[in-house]
Amino acid sequence: MPTLHRWLPRLTILDWGREYDRGTLMSDLLAALIVTIMLIPQSLAYALLAGLPPEVGIYASIAPLIAYALFGTSRTLAVGPVAVASLMTAAAIGSVAASGTAQYWEAAIVLALLGGVMLIALGVLRLGFLANFLSHPVISGFISASGLLIAASQLKHLMGVKASGHQLPDLLASLWRAAPSTHWPTLAIGAGAVAFLWWVRKQFKPLLLGLGLPATAADAMAKAGPVAAIAVTTWLVWHWGLNDGGHGVHIVGAIPTGLPPLTLPSWNPGLWQQLAAPAFLIAAVGFVESVSVGQTLAAKRRQRIDPNQELVALGASNVAASFTGGFPVTGGFARSVVNFDAGARTPAAGMFTAVGLAGAALFLTPALYYLPQATLAATIVVAVLSLVDLDMLRRTWAYSRADFAAVASTLVATLLLGVETGLVIGVGVSLALYIYRTSVPHIATVGLVPHTEHFRNVLRHTVLTSPRLVSLRVDESLYFANARALEDCVNAAAAHPEVEHIVLQCSAVNLIDASALESLEAVHQRLQQAHIRLHLSEVKGPVMDRLKNTEFIQHLSGQVFLTHYQAIASLTPEVLQG
Amino acid sequence: MPTLHRWLPRLTILDWGREYDRGTLMSDLLAALIVTIMLIPQSLAYALLAGLPPEVGIYASIAPLIAYALFGTSRTLAVGPVAVASLMTAAAIGSVAASGTAQYWEAAIVLALLGGVMLIALGVLRLGFLANFLSHPVISGFISASGLLIAASQLKHLMGVKASGHQLPDLLASLWRAAPSTHWPTLAIGAGAVAFLWWVRKQFKPLLLGLGLPATAADAMAKAGPVAAIAVTTWLVWHWGLNDGGHGVHIVGAIPTGLPPLTLPSWNPGLWQQLAAPAFLIAAVGFVESVSVGQTLAAKRRQRIDPNQELVALGASNVAASFTGGFPVTGGFARSVVNFDAGARTPAAGMFTAVGLAGAALFLTPALYYLPQATLAATIVVAVLSLVDLDMLRRTWAYSRADFAAVASTLVATLLLGVETGLVIGVGVSLALYIYRTSVPHIATVGLVPHTEHFRNVLRHTVLTSPRLVSLRVDESLYFANARALEDCVNAAAAHPEVEHIVLQCSAVNLIDASALESLEAVHQRLQQAHIRLHLSEVKGPVMDRLKNTEFIQHLSGQVFLTHYQAIASLTPEVLQG
Repeated sequence: MPTLHRWLPRLTILDWGREYDRGTLMSDLLAALIVTIMLIPQSLAYALLAGLPPEVGIYASIAPLIAYALFGTSRTLAVGPVAVASLMTAAAIGSVAASGTAQYWEAAIVLALLGGVMLIALGVLRLGFLANFLSHPVISGFISASGLLIAASQLKHLMGVKASGHQLPDLLASLWRAAPSTHWPTLAIGAGAVAFLWWVRKQFKPLLLGLGLPATAADAMAKAGPVAAIAVTTWLVWHWGLNDGGHGVHIVGAIPTGLPPLTLPSWNPGLWQQLAAPAFLIAAVGFVESVSVGQTLAAKRRQRIDPNQELVALGASNVAASFTGGFPVTGGFARSVVNFDAGARTPAAGMFTAVGLAGAALFLTPALYYLPQATLAATIVVAVLSLVDLDMLRRTWAYSRADFAAVASTLVATLLLGVETGLVIGVGVSLALYIYRTSVPHIATVGLVPHTEHFRNVLRHTVLTSPRLVSLRVDESLYFANARALEDCVNAAAAHPEVEHIVLQCSAVNLIDASALESLEAVHQRLQQAHIRLHLSEVKGPVMDRLKNTEFIQHLSGQVFLTHYQAIASLTPEVLQG
Repeated sequence: MPTLHRWLPRLTILDWGREYDRGTLMSDLLAALIVTIMLIPQSLAYALLAGLPPEVGIYASIAPLIAYALFGTSRTLAVGPVAVASLMTAAAIGSVAASGTAQYWEAAIVLALLGGVMLIALGVLRLGFLANFLSHPVISGFISASGLLIAASQLKHLMGVKASGHQLPDLLASLWRAAPSTHWPTLAIGAGAVAFLWWVRKQFKPLLLGLGLPATAADAMAKAGPVAAIAVTTWLVWHWGLNDGGHGVHIVGAIPTGLPPLTLPSWNPGLWQQLAAPAFLIAAVGFVESVSVGQTLAAKRRQRIDPNQELVALGASNVAASFTGGFPVTGGFARSVVNFDAGARTPAAGMFTAVGLAGAALFLTPALYYLPQATLAATIVVAVLSLVDLDMLRRTWAYSRADFAAVASTLVATLLLGVETGLVIGVGVSLALYIYRTSVPHIATVGLVPHTEHFRNVLRHTVLTSPRLVSLRVDESLYFANARALEDCVNAAAAHPEVEHIVLQCSAVNLIDASALESLEAVHQRLQQAHIRLHLSEVKGPVMDRLKNTEFIQHLSGQVFLTHYQAIASLTPEVLQG
């Protein structure tokens, strides 16, 4: 295969399209139907969360699904607007335009385009590994904080008041000031919908199972909860005229009927520049979430996904969103699991879902005229509270203080300073902690484990040693940040008057950079003046390749041993006798 | 000793002061005399380089020396204005005030105070290790670039023109535009002084040695070169009236006679804020240079220096500078070596040097009235060109491409973007390269070296293996940036149908963070589905302490072996038979 091929994104539809048959079609159609019913309220709700007109949510759920089906490597990932990306979108474009204006929507379209182009570029350049820098603690802290922020941002819709803010303190302060003007009928609908949806999620399914229903039927009925809530509250508002000519319960109102419009992202360099950083962050978070959902589902069926091709597919989905009036999209966890559980076998299920949503955009929207915004807010609140996993703080604390620090700082920074700053701080903190940990290396004095050729820490194991020789195992790559720590440690070891040899066991040294080489030379020189010989053992291939041309190794007072055991056998054979 | 003591800086004069005797006094006095003669032209020149009046250079060489003598741990380090710090000072305060104004000097005083206070704070908090992040390649690239920048900045004095700029391109462009108005008598003096000083440095000493002079005498005469250049050119200007009432050769002119003034750094929060970042960078570079000079000299006499106490001592020196009309100071390489070679035994030599310079400030300055600025510029140019070590680029390239990238990017960024940006970019690049290297870990498949219990890379050594078992040695700590790489590698190893066991040899794994633990769990689950057991061997104490409470280790399908040899002996004993 010519190398150029490796650099070009594939049309993955050519892979799965060939084997497509009638059985697959029926599975995919059924899954598409279920996902469509689930997505109608969700897409409206996430558009509301992003501060956009409700129909934009539906637009963003059509073309992106088709684009993903053409390029994606996951068979079951469902792409569309998701909660966290919608919150980040609101935060990003809220700083360049006012919600409800044409500029606001325009900015959302540009945001999707920028994110999409960046994802495609990263995919073509095979830079998918960059997503690794969003470490697990950072992502989980960020998602939990986002869940809390999203829930808080929906309180205004549940209370029927006006409030604003992209950070928790000003959001809550704004709600507090608005609390006296709470609209009680709205609150009744909102709180009722939250309670109902919570009950469906937590207790309805066990109840149905207890009544003897099969698991799949119980599951389907539980998933229909939001649809029921929407039907009931819409009927209530219509029947009692609760919307009261604009002064009562806020309703979704007239949604334009029709297929997504063809939109050309506006060429506005100033705007592009302002939105570039948030677009990158939204794309990065979306990619990480999407790949982790895709990998989890693929593993269940022994399939694999290709992260770099996924970048291209997600990028194409976002570009598709930007040309059809949408906003940033990514692979969603809940909808993908529903798609998987409902039996979807290929991305064709996504295409059928797109057709279903196009049907909704054409025919269903008038029926949603009286849908209260409070009901949509309730579906968001109940959905996102499952993202909040504060127990993870306890678990991370138990495993490692450093990981806990990364989780906690991301969580707190996201709540207090907003999504973008929070994410950047999280990545910064986790990198700084890693660097800090490697800058204070663990250096163990080791001795021979009796009856083996293995060496272990003298403080943890009963081992054999000689006063004439100090074995130091350096538990870190040697580089500029910790070079001095090695110097201090060797100097301390050399202080004992009986010592004749110091052997550095380099089994954990994966790199010796120029600064560390300089330190080794300094150590070597000092030991030579004190008539102590310096030896190395178990130097790895890649490290030795580099060292062998240096003056340090050519003038080394001691030897380089293949194994530490050979070093001891040759320098202090009395140790082997026990 | 109560713990509080550890946190308080020491008055080190109490250590060496007790043993002070007549022999030490004579050695110190002689060294002080030689250093004083050397420092008079240097201090004037570095003040000029910093854009300050010449007497400020002398002021900055008096009180700081006394402060260092009270707190420093190096016996021979000589503190005062140095070339790189002076250049950085000019860049920093050039952006807040115009050279020659009272505000400019005031800003220099604030800069010294801020740097001093930061150094003391870092020392008291024992944060001296932060200096490690200025890696060897970054420092050497930065020093070479600074040397070139300094030489370029002095060309205007050698040509007798006006020019400005803190980056190489605008500096050279400015000189190019000014070239037609070159003042030829100035250029003659400047070029003559450069040629003379260069000859003294390169050929005069060998000549004297060839004539049979003792090495110390030859050395002393060579060191007197700048003094001779100053005497001759001053006489020339005076004798022929080359200064021409302000229109001819620029001279130093009237230097106020007297001891350093008592100055109170101005309390101006806006100015403090603007100067905080440059003050930190100047302090950090100064500290790194100073400590490396101090350590080199201390090692020669089997003495040690304490980096945290050095922070306090340098901080005190800068605070002393700021209260006596000075500017940022640090330990200088050349003057410290001269001090050491001249036989200085204690910091008292520095105190005597301070007295000598105070004498110069009181009585000598009128004699320097006709000293041409071009001569001072010549002494700077010749001194700093020895800092420029472009061969280091070649050496670093030979050792490691990554270190070369750090050197080269620091060098280029410093030349093109200025000292502050250059330094920050250098640190950023070296950290990014380290993170990048650890994010693509070297993972070797290993086998048993015959007749040992040692395992080595199958690609580099002749080793024994079994098709039923794959031994993977992970040559990197497992953390978020490389967690996915491990997954890919294990998945690839598991693809061979015969494989029953995968053993991860963890001798080089110094850390497993929460993200990597998650990856290990995913790998474990996938292997379990393929009926392959996962084992670990040689897990280090600190790593195992953390792992032992995790679900991963409690449900591990395989075992954790103390040594990799035991794993092979127990799982595939046929390998041991060869």
